[in-house]
Amino acid sequence: MSLNPSINPHVSTDCVIFGFSQETLRLLLIRRSIPNRLTDVNDIHYALPGDLVRDDEDLDKAANRVLSELTGLKGIYLEQFHSFGDPLRVTKPKDRAWLESVRQDPDARVITVAYMALIDANKAVLQPGSFSKEAVWLPISEVPELAFDHNEIFENALKALKEKVQIQPIGFELLPEKFTMSQLQSLYETILERDLDKRNFRRKMLNSGVLIPLSEKQLGVSNKPARFYSFNRDLFENSDSRYLNLRMDGSFSLFG
Amino acid sequence: MSLNPSINPHVSTDCVIFGFSQETLRLLLIRRSIPNRLTDVNDIHYALPGDLVRDDEDLDKAANRVLSELTGLKGIYLEQFHSFGDPLRVTKPKDRAWLESVRQDPDARVITVAYMALIDANKAVLQPGSFSKEAVWLPISEVPELAFDHNEIFENALKALKEKVQIQPIGFELLPEKFTMSQLQSLYETILERDLDKRNFRRKMLNSGVLIPLSEKQLGVSNKPARFYSFNRDLFENSDSRYLNLRMDGSFSLFG
Repeated sequence: MSLNPSINPHVSTDCVIFGFSQETLRLLLIRRSIPNRLTDVNDIHYALPGDLVRDDEDLDKAANRVLSELTGLKGIYLEQFHSFGDPLRVTKPKDRAWLESVRQDPDARVITVAYMALIDANKAVLQPGSFSKEAVWLPISEVPELAFDHNEIFENALKALKEKVQIQPIGFELLPEKFTMSQLQSLYETILERDLDKRNFRRKMLNSGVLIPLSEKQLGVSNKPARFYSFNRDLFENSDSRYLNLRMDGSFSLFG
Repeated sequence: MSLNPSINPHVSTDCVIFGFSQETLRLLLIRRSIPNRLTDVNDIHYALPGDLVRDDEDLDKAANRVLSELTGLKGIYLEQFHSFGDPLRVTKPKDRAWLESVRQDPDARVITVAYMALIDANKAVLQPGSFSKEAVWLPISEVPELAFDHNEIFENALKALKEKVQIQPIGFELLPEKFTMSQLQSLYETILERDLDKRNFRRKMLNSGVLIPLSEKQLGVSNKPARFYSFNRDLFENSDSRYLNLRMDGSFSLFG
């Protein structure tokens, strides 16, 4: 079988990139400019960075290429989280003009394999390309109507992220090398979109083994200086299990 | 756009069905009969139940249809767990004869969306159909070479199942309504493929809240009679979180 390096009309990949900056969880979106036949002025639409898979690339590689082409982001660890295949997902009238402007076969049914990542938005250098006119970070509370079923994909990814942060030590790379318990709690509160009980949080985090207490403490604060911690990376990288169960000991939820 | 109820040549679904019976974890496989041009005798190949998706069905529906057509199993809750898209996954010579015998376009690249389930093998009524000549349960330690990348899909599903059983209350439907701690431990040991420390297991299970201790005890045993437990279904069905974190309180693994 000879592989055709052309585009597969039936399979795409979409990337849900969460970014943390200024204590806010944000979503990376691209802006597309779409000809409007009625007004003769281009409409602006938001979408997740996504595009069709090439016939000669595997799914992980396709996701990385598409993200890079549309937003400039490279070398990000993208985790596949779910495939979406409603037969009508690309048939809405609102998406028709754009489909016709970019696709050879706008009638083709498209199944999309969705990926997600959580990164430091401050360190991300955005450089839109291909059909993406702009790449922007929007706070997750301000996500507008998106193309296709992208709102559904985003909602599913957000739910998956909230589950994940409670069973895996993710998000630590968003903090400075040395951080206080308050900074860590603030990160968790942002991702989970709710307030957490300070004592419970502290106890569960300390019990988890994920933190290394440092002798160093905060300088130049008027109150009692807070202790610094660092992330116990070795424990996770050398452990059989990458799971961290913060939900339980006696209760069913981490911060219940 | 008119939907074509025909087959999508580029997307398939595969089902990894784990079955528990006689204290053994088994995998449901279909046997296919493939013409061998050299020997004139049909070769027998094993594969996961899987087939192409129709253009008018969503992925969950496709998985259920395919499973039912090939094995007779109906009404099983299938969970999507990963999509596999190596461009070369259906190009191996060993799979060629079969592809040519059943596919209109045997050269088409196929991306597969994989589903999994864990069921009681004793209650499953198997009735093979379509290109499946037989549907069989094989102990997971005796899984032979399978079609395409099905060994990889099975290994990934097994890994996912082992993670899952430690953070979600799955598998309880495989036990009688009232069960002893030993029966529960035996189920976990079978799924995790390793021995567990009895005291640790008991403590974590009791702390989890997932068990309701019954006043009833075993009858007709010579030793100290064991207490019966039932599964605290309400807690999970009415809970915000379906997660049960058995891995931690102070340690990183459930049974470490």
